[in-house]
Amino acid sequence: MRNVSIIGVGCTKFGEHWEKSFRQLIAEAGIEAILSAGIEGKDIEALYGGSMASGRFIGQEHIGALIADQLGLNPIPATRVENACASGGTALRSGYMAIKSGEYDMVAIGGVEKMTDVGVEDAAIALGGAGDQETELFHGASFPALYALMARAHMNEFGTTEEQLATVSVKNHHNAMLNPKAQFHREITIENVMNSGYIATPLKLLDCSPITDGAAAVILCESEKAREICENPVEIIASAQASDTLALAGRKSLSEIMATKVAAKNAFEKAKITAKDVDFAEVHDCFTIAEILAIEAIGFCEKGKGGKFTADGNTALNGEIPVNVSGGLKGKGHPVGATGIAQAVEAVLQLRGQAEKRQVKDAKIGLTHNVGGSGATCVLHLLKALEGKK
Amino acid sequence: MRNVSIIGVGCTKFGEHWEKSFRQLIAEAGIEAILSAGIEGKDIEALYGGSMASGRFIGQEHIGALIADQLGLNPIPATRVENACASGGTALRSGYMAIKSGEYDMVAIGGVEKMTDVGVEDAAIALGGAGDQETELFHGASFPALYALMARAHMNEFGTTEEQLATVSVKNHHNAMLNPKAQFHREITIENVMNSGYIATPLKLLDCSPITDGAAAVILCESEKAREICENPVEIIASAQASDTLALAGRKSLSEIMATKVAAKNAFEKAKITAKDVDFAEVHDCFTIAEILAIEAIGFCEKGKGGKFTADGNTALNGEIPVNVSGGLKGKGHPVGATGIAQAVEAVLQLRGQAEKRQVKDAKIGLTHNVGGSGATCVLHLLKALEGKK
Repeated sequence: MRNVSIIGVGCTKFGEHWEKSFRQLIAEAGIEAILSAGIEGKDIEALYGGSMASGRFIGQEHIGALIADQLGLNPIPATRVENACASGGTALRSGYMAIKSGEYDMVAIGGVEKMTDVGVEDAAIALGGAGDQETELFHGASFPALYALMARAHMNEFGTTEEQLATVSVKNHHNAMLNPKAQFHREITIENVMNSGYIATPLKLLDCSPITDGAAAVILCESEKAREICENPVEIIASAQASDTLALAGRKSLSEIMATKVAAKNAFEKAKITAKDVDFAEVHDCFTIAEILAIEAIGFCEKGKGGKFTADGNTALNGEIPVNVSGGLKGKGHPVGATGIAQAVEAVLQLRGQAEKRQVKDAKIGLTHNVGGSGATCVLHLLKALEGKK
Repeated sequence: MRNVSIIGVGCTKFGEHWEKSFRQLIAEAGIEAILSAGIEGKDIEALYGGSMASGRFIGQEHIGALIADQLGLNPIPATRVENACASGGTALRSGYMAIKSGEYDMVAIGGVEKMTDVGVEDAAIALGGAGDQETELFHGASFPALYALMARAHMNEFGTTEEQLATVSVKNHHNAMLNPKAQFHREITIENVMNSGYIATPLKLLDCSPITDGAAAVILCESEKAREICENPVEIIASAQASDTLALAGRKSLSEIMATKVAAKNAFEKAKITAKDVDFAEVHDCFTIAEILAIEAIGFCEKGKGGKFTADGNTALNGEIPVNVSGGLKGKGHPVGATGIAQAVEAVLQLRGQAEKRQVKDAKIGLTHNVGGSGATCVLHLLKALEGKK
C-alpha cells in the first residue's frame, strides 16, 4: 500500500494581477513549490494542472502542457483536469492516485486562473459554465442566484438569518488580515455586510467571493521516499470525491450539499477518524451560505445549525473548529482553478507550524473541501504531518 | 500488480449532428458502452470525461459531472480531463491509472465534442487554444498553418511530396467507406486532393480533418475481474504519455514529434514489444502530414520515409502495418475530445474480430496514438485481447 505526502508548496499573492500573465503566475507558484521541496525539476515525473475556464478567460486550453513547458519539465506527462471550481482539488486527487498506482513517485500539481483579463460580465458567464448552462445560466441564473436559492431554502427550513451568514464573511475577512497572500486586507463588520448591495437576494456583495488572479502548487511524493528526502512531509491520509446533478433542479434538497456529505463520509472512513478529530478546515466558501452548508455536511455541527454555530464563534481562529483561517475564498480570494490547491498549501503550512499569525494551536489533522459548481462536484482531503527521517 | 482491460465500448456516428446535443451524444455513447459491457450503471465506481473546448463550443464546463448526471451515475467521482485533441486518450489513461491505484475496479471513460454549434471561424479560434495562444494563434497561426510548417520542414528535409501526403487522405477515405460510423463515405483520389484548395500551403482542404460532432465511451475493469465477467476483454498492455513545448518555436525539430517518440519508446518498453509486433494502429491524422510524422516517430518506418512508405501501400488495410483502418480523423471525423476514445473503441472491435468489412486479419496487438495541439501532448496505448473465463 503506497501512501502519498506533500513535500513542497507554493502560492502567489491572490488579487488583481494586472502586471502578471497566467503563465507568470503558475511559473511563480510552481518554482516556489519546487524550491520549497528541495528538489530539482528533473525529479518530477508527471504534472497535473487545474484550471476551470482558461479557454474563456485567456483563450488558452491545453494548460497541462503549458505549465510543464513554463517550468521546463518536458517531456513528462502533463494533464489538465477541470471540475469547475473544484479543478484544483481534483488535480490534487489525480496526482495522489497517479502515485498510488505505482506509475510515479513524484508529481507536481499546479492550479491557476487569470480571471481579470475579461470584463465582469464575461467572467460571470464563464463561471456560469460550472452549473447547467442549458437549464440555469441560459435563463439568467448565474452563480449568486443559484447560491441565493440555497440560502433561501436554508433560511426557510432552519431559520438561518442574513446576519448569521454575514458572520462567515466577517470572520474570513478577519482571518485574511493575518495572511499576507490574501486578496483583501480589510476588516469588515456585520453592518458592512448587511449594508452592501443585494446581488441575488438574500446574498449581498459581501456575501460573495471575489474575482481573483492567482496560482498555487504542491509537490507530491510517495510517503516512504518523502520521509527520506523531506524534513516535514505532510501525508494525505484520505482523498475522496463525489458528484451530484449538475443543475440544482435535480437535487433532492437545496439546503444541503449531498456531494460533500458523501465525500466526507468516504474520507473519514478511509482515514478511520471522525469530524471531531479534525483540528482545522479550509472549506469552499464561494458564498457565505456555502461555508454553512459545508460545515454541516462535513459534520462539524448539526444540520441546520451552521448559522448559529458560526455566529457563536465556534469556527473562529481560536474556536472549537477553526474554519478558513487562511481567509477562505471570501477573504483570501478565489482564482477558481487554484483554490483547491491553495487550500492544501494552507493545510501544509498549518500542519508544519508555519502559519505565523494565523497558526492554529496544536494542529495535527487538517481538512480541505473544494466544491465545483453548485455542488455537482466535491473533493475532500484529510492531511496529517509525518515525521521525516531527514 | 493490477492490470486494466476494456470490457465495453460505445460510439455515436460521427458527423454534423444538428439534431443532437452534446448531452445526447455522450448519453448515446455511454449507454451503448454500458450495455455492451453487460453491466449496470451502479457497477461503475468513477468516471473520466474528455472534452477539449466545451466552454467555447457550448458554454459548458464541468462536463465530468454533466456526463455522470446524464448517465444517472451520481454520486460517483466524475472528472473532466483536457489535453486539447488528446483529451480522450488522456481520459483513458486517467481511468487506467485510477484502477491501477486500487481506488476502483470499474471506471467509465467518455469523450465528446459538439463542434458545430459555433461557426467555422469560432471553431478555428477555439481549436487554436490547443497551441500557444500568445505566440501562435494571436498572430494568425491557426492549426492548418502550424501543421503546414511541419509539412514544409518534412518536404525540405526528406523530399516528401504533396502527392505522398495525399495518399494518406485517399487511404483513410477509402477505409472510412467500410466504417458505418464514419463522417465521410466518399472515395477520393490523389487528383481530388491535389485539386482541393490550399488552406495553408502545402496543405489543401483534403489534407485536413473535418469539424465533427460525436462521442465515444469505454468501460474499464481490473483485468482479473474482467476475465470473470466478460467473454472478450481487451487488456491495455501499456499506457504512456509525454509532453513537449506548447509552441512550435520551442521545438528542436519541426520534422518530428518528440512527444510521440518518447511515449512510444516508453510504451514499447513497458509492454516488452517493438513496433514490429503491432498488427494495426489508429494514429492521430488531424492533417495528412500528422500521420506521416506519427508512423515515423512510432517506428513503423524509417524517419523521413513515411511519405513513400504510405504511397507504396504499406499502411493500407491489407498492408504491412494497417494504419487508421477506421478511417482515421480524416475519414471518420475528429470530434476532438472524443477522438482518443474512439481510437480505443476501434482497437477493441479489431482485437475482438468485430470490425466487419474493415477487419485486420489476425489482429493480436493494436496501438492507439492521440496527439494534443501540434505535439505538446502525446498519449499512446497498446492493447491486446485477453481470454475471458466467462
